[in-house]
Amino acid sequence: MIAEIIAAGSELLTPHRQDTNSLYLTQGLNDLGVSVAFKTIVGDNRAHLTSAIRIALSRADIVITSGGLGPTEDDLTRECVAEALSLELYRDPTTMAAIYKRFAERRMAMPPNNEKQAEVIDGAILLPNKNGSAPAQYLDTTVDSHRKIIILLPGPPKELKPLFDQAVKPRLAQSLPPRAIAKRILRMALIPESTVDARTAPIYQQFPDIETTILAGSGEIQLHFTCVKLTHEEAQSRVDELTELVEAEMGEDIFSSHGESLEEVVLLMLGLQNQTLSLAESCTGGLLAERLTAIPNASRTFTAGIIPYTNAAKTQLAHVPADLLTQYGAVSEPAARALAEGIRQRTGASLSLSITGIAGPAIPTDPADANKPIGLVYIGLADEHDTQVKQLQIPGDRDRVRLWATQHALELLRRRLQ
Amino acid sequence: MIAEIIAAGSELLTPHRQDTNSLYLTQGLNDLGVSVAFKTIVGDNRAHLTSAIRIALSRADIVITSGGLGPTEDDLTRECVAEALSLELYRDPTTMAAIYKRFAERRMAMPPNNEKQAEVIDGAILLPNKNGSAPAQYLDTTVDSHRKIIILLPGPPKELKPLFDQAVKPRLAQSLPPRAIAKRILRMALIPESTVDARTAPIYQQFPDIETTILAGSGEIQLHFTCVKLTHEEAQSRVDELTELVEAEMGEDIFSSHGESLEEVVLLMLGLQNQTLSLAESCTGGLLAERLTAIPNASRTFTAGIIPYTNAAKTQLAHVPADLLTQYGAVSEPAARALAEGIRQRTGASLSLSITGIAGPAIPTDPADANKPIGLVYIGLADEHDTQVKQLQIPGDRDRVRLWATQHALELLRRRLQ
Repeated sequence: MIAEIIAAGSELLTPHRQDTNSLYLTQGLNDLGVSVAFKTIVGDNRAHLTSAIRIALSRADIVITSGGLGPTEDDLTRECVAEALSLELYRDPTTMAAIYKRFAERRMAMPPNNEKQAEVIDGAILLPNKNGSAPAQYLDTTVDSHRKIIILLPGPPKELKPLFDQAVKPRLAQSLPPRAIAKRILRMALIPESTVDARTAPIYQQFPDIETTILAGSGEIQLHFTCVKLTHEEAQSRVDELTELVEAEMGEDIFSSHGESLEEVVLLMLGLQNQTLSLAESCTGGLLAERLTAIPNASRTFTAGIIPYTNAAKTQLAHVPADLLTQYGAVSEPAARALAEGIRQRTGASLSLSITGIAGPAIPTDPADANKPIGLVYIGLADEHDTQVKQLQIPGDRDRVRLWATQHALELLRRRLQ
Repeated sequence: MIAEIIAAGSELLTPHRQDTNSLYLTQGLNDLGVSVAFKTIVGDNRAHLTSAIRIALSRADIVITSGGLGPTEDDLTRECVAEALSLELYRDPTTMAAIYKRFAERRMAMPPNNEKQAEVIDGAILLPNKNGSAPAQYLDTTVDSHRKIIILLPGPPKELKPLFDQAVKPRLAQSLPPRAIAKRILRMALIPESTVDARTAPIYQQFPDIETTILAGSGEIQLHFTCVKLTHEEAQSRVDELTELVEAEMGEDIFSSHGESLEEVVLLMLGLQNQTLSLAESCTGGLLAERLTAIPNASRTFTAGIIPYTNAAKTQLAHVPADLLTQYGAVSEPAARALAEGIRQRTGASLSLSITGIAGPAIPTDPADANKPIGLVYIGLADEHDTQVKQLQIPGDRDRVRLWATQHALELLRRRLQ
């Protein structure tokens, strides 16, 4: 069974807006064993949309549309699907009443064009929309003696997602062969994709019944294992088996084997060990603190951060001696060490990380740092016993240097906690 | 003239990867006066790709493909375009030599399948690719007595973008009626889209020769004005005229009228006024510092930030009296005031901002804050004379509360500097 997803909306054909619903729908369809073979994006144009639907019906078994179910003249999906299938539209009285009620509850008069949202394609099942006024429509029909399932979903993600999960997926599952799916996601930081693949391919290739996907980006590699069987137990035991073998090969390079982010894992480990963390970030400007505090309950272990951007602030906030900065520069092994130790002492945290570097594109004006290369970064990690400093040369632009510096800092801390 | 963009690649039909090239290509085509009417995403499947190209040729004047020009068996775009047009492929000796040279320079033996990258569709012009081995191809031809332009671009953005800008756009421009385009982007923070539209629509509607687009998101509204004329002067004077009228209506609500971000504007104003800024962020956890320091040369005016996540850290780093925190809680007007004043004094900056609030989903455990609602945020702004504190109730989840809090802080500072 193959599917096509059609996203309708002229705004999706501008440089500013992108169809993202299809990623969510694709995940859901894949869970059911359905591949997406085509995605089409088309504007609010009757001829274009009708023809796109006709083409989709000619080449896919399942066609899902998103968008174009609103009350305006530009909302054409219902009409175009009906036209493509040569079916009639009728106004559903129950839906009409629900739409009037929605407006009445908000003490608003209903503009007459809203009645359009009650139009139903002959033979379609209506799927009520709790988060909006236009219901979804589900049509199981035959075109040229081939069975075709056509599903019309509203465009706003907060309407589309619950409708798809709660009403469409269970209904589709009934029309498809029974199956159970199990997944594991293994995550690793700062290892080249080619290294991960060279070490794990000999293992995962022995599991032809498991689909392996390698995703790389932002200083991280993810291995996704997906297995489909008749029962969930069977599928789960296969992905668990493969996960164990890959874990044995990659060892501590794997920071999570259930999908958690590096920030989550570090906060979890800190909590389990009753440790607290403080930060002193210069070139990353708060990015590391921001990543950690984006996780709810970070406050249980993260106590404080400082961003001493100037040399004076390094002295004021972390007690880095001014003459150390004059002698070695702010981007130096001694400065990273003094920052990590200084913030640990100031805050009383059990552990601290420091980051100082040159993110570019400008080079530092301070003479002690002026001849150092863009991408040079020092990371300090201090505990009550000693301080470790790691020197890095990170390639890329400002954003990349900053992101990778925080990734290196988190990974350094994770390996210390392991 | 309408265009269709076809993105080829099975990875673009997974839940993990999305075609983003088409946004860039759409902008470039729009600049030339060409609208994108369809986008198709198709996998590395010969029958699917050939049929998608045939359909595109039947409904668009310009067809641009991205991807599928590499050396592997899955790279099928050249063959499929040739097949769809019933044209032959030949091997171009110059390209073949260039590919061999590329490998020789890296002292690598060339795998024979790389020769495929030298295949050219009969009649196509080759556009050399400085950033990769497969050249782009540009074909100006006739299908069923209609003129069709078909352009094959490589998939990696760092190859596609320069090829499109430097080789494709100038060539397309010659085939299209001469035109000049001028644009202005006006940006406003924290105003409802409906308010902006109600106040500006009566103005921009008087300029039917200007295309107005309103984009809203992340606490910001953007008005894009685009005008197309025969000369650049004419187009520029029209968008400037409209911009002046909208500026007169919206006044200081507009933070930039040449597209700069709110962070950039604030840093620029601080620099022009010889002011320096320090920050004390609690609930936003470094996000505001991160936004400011993402801008190159932020160090000219941003001196330091602190993220005193615990009450103890608020006292240690910003000298907030412990009994103030016990009495009013960390999320309070007095705490925001003390944080802003404390960090200003500690760092000697001329201005300081503080943010303290409840981002959720967890509620604070400290009894002084435990009964306060999620989304409650206080922002402090201190200078040498006085301290202003703004109380907000920001709806939404943790990410939204944090982002909007930083947006409010930047906007409060901008209005002070104005």
